[in-house]
Amino acid sequence: MDIMGHVRHEIFTHAVGKGVLVDMTASDTYDTVMEFIDQGYHIVLANKRPLTASFPRYQAMLDRARAKGVALMHEATVGAGLPVLDTIAKLQASGDKIYTVLGCLSGTLGYISNELSQGTLFSNAVAQAWRQGYTEPHPADDLSGMDVARKALILARKLGMNINLEDIDVNPLFPAEIYCENPQDFLDRLKQLDSSFAALVQDAAQQGNVIRYVARIDSEKVSVGQEFVPVNSPLGRLQGTDNQIVIRTKRYDTNPLIVTGPGAGAEVTAAGVINDVIAIAVSHFGN
Amino acid sequence: MDIMGHVRHEIFTHAVGKGVLVDMTASDTYDTVMEFIDQGYHIVLANKRPLTASFPRYQAMLDRARAKGVALMHEATVGAGLPVLDTIAKLQASGDKIYTVLGCLSGTLGYISNELSQGTLFSNAVAQAWRQGYTEPHPADDLSGMDVARKALILARKLGMNINLEDIDVNPLFPAEIYCENPQDFLDRLKQLDSSFAALVQDAAQQGNVIRYVARIDSEKVSVGQEFVPVNSPLGRLQGTDNQIVIRTKRYDTNPLIVTGPGAGAEVTAAGVINDVIAIAVSHFGN
Repeated sequence: MDIMGHVRHEIFTHAVGKGVLVDMTASDTYDTVMEFIDQGYHIVLANKRPLTASFPRYQAMLDRARAKGVALMHEATVGAGLPVLDTIAKLQASGDKIYTVLGCLSGTLGYISNELSQGTLFSNAVAQAWRQGYTEPHPADDLSGMDVARKALILARKLGMNINLEDIDVNPLFPAEIYCENPQDFLDRLKQLDSSFAALVQDAAQQGNVIRYVARIDSEKVSVGQEFVPVNSPLGRLQGTDNQIVIRTKRYDTNPLIVTGPGAGAEVTAAGVINDVIAIAVSHFGN
Repeated sequence: MDIMGHVRHEIFTHAVGKGVLVDMTASDTYDTVMEFIDQGYHIVLANKRPLTASFPRYQAMLDRARAKGVALMHEATVGAGLPVLDTIAKLQASGDKIYTVLGCLSGTLGYISNELSQGTLFSNAVAQAWRQGYTEPHPADDLSGMDVARKALILARKLGMNINLEDIDVNPLFPAEIYCENPQDFLDRLKQLDSSFAALVQDAAQQGNVIRYVARIDSEKVSVGQEFVPVNSPLGRLQGTDNQIVIRTKRYDTNPLIVTGPGAGAEVTAAGVINDVIAIAVSHFGN
């Protein structure tokens, strides 16, 4: 352990020059991140919280990092190890113009959407996801759409939008009055929604659609919520707990650029973080 | 034009240090590339030819580039602007183990596969693709599978395989005796294959499959040819002229990492090249 710590320190001081702060928490670490930037550390975040602070605070963080000449990277915050933010950065760097980004960015809500399409009752689909450990400890934290909204905010800001979490049109999968603190009781209460979800799924199917929980970012507006999408569209063909991001640009217009795959889990999140650290090592030391 | 040339020269000498040779030809430029490496130029290839030379020559090129401290990049050679080689490099850099790479790497053959599934006769599907400019001037150059085989070779070598083009099991879409130099006559002769293709498509459909022209790379073997794939698999759901690459790794095993989108065309090829040039500028100059 000591040896590893020593090796790691050597790598950082030789290959990166400064240190790298890697934030794998889910806490409000904004002030800590700012302190480390001031001390000349590069920043790699798997934690969305510092990036979803109010826009002035977000901008101040970017400005501070630029002023100190340190990198601020966070590939793992959207889609874990999938090449999402990096692909957007490359499209921008090569002069493409991004029109819209659509994402299914929650494996949990993807699983529930697919179960609904197969005729599972909404409350049963959520209970299954909860029992299999796909949800947060309290399933309301997934169904609220707030986790997807935070990812959408991160994407929107990457696209240059000056917006805040409150500006996003977030449509949760349950009405506020149904909420209660006990997860098991909450799951019971969701049964009230079963018939309306079943009707919605049937309605969608009659039009050749399926329902998906979509983050939709265009130059005007960011929304997060359930949408009808054609069963034969990329998002409609998505299966299981996979994430998907569909990017339409000036160059990828008729047919978009699509990245699909598992977007959560310890290993693929760690991979996203490691790739950021390597990119910092390469760009600040050369290869 | 003079001013642009001057600006471009300035960018290269200031930001990159050395020059960058960008090869957008389809010629055998191996010797030229070696000369530029010797002179200290970084190399960016959209041209597959130098990368599909015999393995000893390929390895000599990599060794020479390493010895001279110059980059040798070629994202545009597989999937044009799609993040294919870069994604593979990142999986490798973060310590993942790549099991298999499957690809539909020809928009032309993708188009023909989809037309076949919709009941179009093989010779008509090829003639349509030819008339719409999706094929090479002589459609045999697409149907031979050699272009896909070259991309498969590039991928296989990236995965560390010591192989040559001759080692790839290439299955062309027509028997050699049908070939003739005149494209129109060749299209006529393809009618001889219509009934066997129609039978194949029907056979596939009865098993819930569709046919796709697949490049398949695993640790043992590289093959290129028509395969039956489940209609509900990623490759089976592919539509139109899109390319797709399906990567299974230790971390992305049950559900693979998939990149989909247009994989040919001047603009997206140029984007792949530009991103390589930018990566060189960043890694050899810092950001």
